Amino acid sequence: MTATTQSPSPAARVAAPGEGVSLAELQLAARNSGLPLEALRYEITPLGLHYLLTHYDIPYVDPVTWRLTVGGRVERPFEVDLPALRSRSAVTRAVTLECAGNGRAALEPRPVSQPWLNEAVGTMRWTGTPLAPLLEEAGVLDGAVEVVFTGADRGLERGVEQTYARSLPLAEALREEVMLVWAVNDVDLPPQHGAPVRLVVPGWYGMAHVKWLRSVELVDRPFEGYQQATAYRIKEDPAERGEPVTRIRPRALMVPPGVPDFMSRTRFVDAGEVLLAGRAWSGQGEVVGVDVSTDDGATWQEAELGPAGDRWAWRAWVVAWDAAPGTHHLRCRARDASGAVQPLQQAWNVQGMANNSAQRVAVVVR
Amino acid sequence: MTATTQSPSPAARVAAPGEGVSLAELQLAARNSGLPLEALRYEITPLGLHYLLTHYDIPYVDPVTWRLTVGGRVERPFEVDLPALRSRSAVTRAVTLECAGNGRAALEPRPVSQPWLNEAVGTMRWTGTPLAPLLEEAGVLDGAVEVVFTGADRGLERGVEQTYARSLPLAEALREEVMLVWAVNDVDLPPQHGAPVRLVVPGWYGMAHVKWLRSVELVDRPFEGYQQATAYRIKEDPAERGEPVTRIRPRALMVPPGVPDFMSRTRFVDAGEVLLAGRAWSGQGEVVGVDVSTDDGATWQEAELGPAGDRWAWRAWVVAWDAAPGTHHLRCRARDASGAVQPLQQAWNVQGMANNSAQRVAVVVR
Repeated sequence: MTATTQSPSPAARVAAPGEGVSLAELQLAARNSGLPLEALRYEITPLGLHYLLTHYDIPYVDPVTWRLTVGGRVERPFEVDLPALRSRSAVTRAVTLECAGNGRAALEPRPVSQPWLNEAVGTMRWTGTPLAPLLEEAGVLDGAVEVVFTGADRGLERGVEQTYARSLPLAEALREEVMLVWAVNDVDLPPQHGAPVRLVVPGWYGMAHVKWLRSVELVDRPFEGYQQATAYRIKEDPAERGEPVTRIRPRALMVPPGVPDFMSRTRFVDAGEVLLAGRAWSGQGEVVGVDVSTDDGATWQEAELGPAGDRWAWRAWVVAWDAAPGTHHLRCRARDASGAVQPLQQAWNVQGMANNSAQRVAVVVR
Repeated sequence: MTATTQSPSPAARVAAPGEGVSLAELQLAARNSGLPLEALRYEITPLGLHYLLTHYDIPYVDPVTWRLTVGGRVERPFEVDLPALRSRSAVTRAVTLECAGNGRAALEPRPVSQPWLNEAVGTMRWTGTPLAPLLEEAGVLDGAVEVVFTGADRGLERGVEQTYARSLPLAEALREEVMLVWAVNDVDLPPQHGAPVRLVVPGWYGMAHVKWLRSVELVDRPFEGYQQATAYRIKEDPAERGEPVTRIRPRALMVPPGVPDFMSRTRFVDAGEVLLAGRAWSGQGEVVGVDVSTDDGATWQEAELGPAGDRWAWRAWVVAWDAAPGTHHLRCRARDASGAVQPLQQAWNVQGMANNSAQRVAVVVR
């Protein structure tokens, strides 16, 4: 990481009241992509509908010359090529990934960055090998406290040129479900999801799942890289250090019922019984309930949960609604085993991180 | 198509000078997705990186019960199921698709709709069967002038509830390269690209390539559906009927060189020789040249074209640039065999259609 004298983008900024989305935000919205919410119908998100957030460019990594280095505070540093990695014991796991900035654009005032509404999520089947045995083979030395994962993607953020890197506490990195992944939904990882190999850290927000992985390094003090110490912090004042973003907060989303208006996305539904359905997830504790309101939060009804599947994948829910003519605002919110419940209105933070306020869908019943 | 009394979205609107992107436009930008321009490096766009524009919702169509009806002004109307369609003679063709609204958000004032910059493009390998033999088997009757293609996607636009439908003049529909497609990049069509079957009309903007196709109907007068008579028209005054949007105008795009700043997307490049590379395409005539300027359009240099591939797919180009320190604006523009050249500044139209003004990339050389 090299500090530069150029400052191409302003420091993190908050939009003025009523300020429309800027060209810079639109550029990000145009190149990153969300899950169209009707695709919540799929338990496993089809390739091409999962959300994508790329900080810099999608790098091209040649799978033939690719090597992963495992080093730092280990007894036996080594490198591994793709055939050797893929010959290790493999596991496939459905995992829900969500961008830590999901919901940012709904905050007031709006933190200026990738302007997600609530579509930065997806659940795919990731295939790879557990990380822990690789670290055991390398021999973690006493004093190692974190593992730093570095990708191949490079760019600048607020004047700091960097290669994307994030760390995990050693105990998190050693969880059996943390994987080095080379396939998704039964095909080789496509470029946009980190080909040839990425990290998957079930339960954590997306910034932890380092794509285009090049190196795994054990370190003896907490990592202070930009994406760890500056970005992905929850703070109310820019001058604070803030709390790190880690595990996914609970969230439920519904498939918007009926048919949409092209421009406003208002929904049109015929009167009568309507099944409201969606998915709910949490990285903090299993989802234990989903509540749905059809009167903008005045009253709530408990939804029926679908069968529990993979621990780190979202869970289906459904509830019947007797839709009477008029305009309605539907809301849904999840509760998890940690006791966390989605708020109706989000506590604000400077970077717009981990905003899990309850979805609100405008519906005209006719 | 049913006119309704509800008017959920305003009539097509043009943003006020300096007006930021609205929440409604952002909702569209978040659910539709563009090609990240670094993915121009791939001759065939990997699945998941091709642009997507969905007017309403992505519908779920059961491939087992799916039938395509061929009817209207034909001697022998019939329907065909998926196994029968897939058993017909198949062809695979690389085709460049581009949204007719590409470039809309760069117009001033900005027409309010899906706010594309210049990333609404992609080239994939589409596999299907030619349409013409199916029409011949049905026996087109004298007096048929157009073919109407109707999908399964339904919604409202400016108060008009509709199922998405578009027509082609009969002679266009009978072109041998017009196909009913069931696979892309060697996999079954995914939901977002029109599963189980879509139309592909090489050379035309994306609105013609009807997804989730349900019916093909021969008609004896020009189709007046919303997507034909109201939307996808080039006009300077909202009261005009305007000219229909048809074939893709020439365009060249470059892979932005160097590395980006996260927020501004400004590019940073090291001084010295830089290879500028990209793709160019046109639905009007073969691409005959690409010109590149590294001084914001003051002078131009001809790029070297790659080998010609499929007629309806984009063509690679490359040119060397001796990058000297400072800030530069790079531009590129294509010429085609019809004599058309990309403009440096776009003629404005109410709906922001078919804007092919030359790309402009800001680069800091250090």
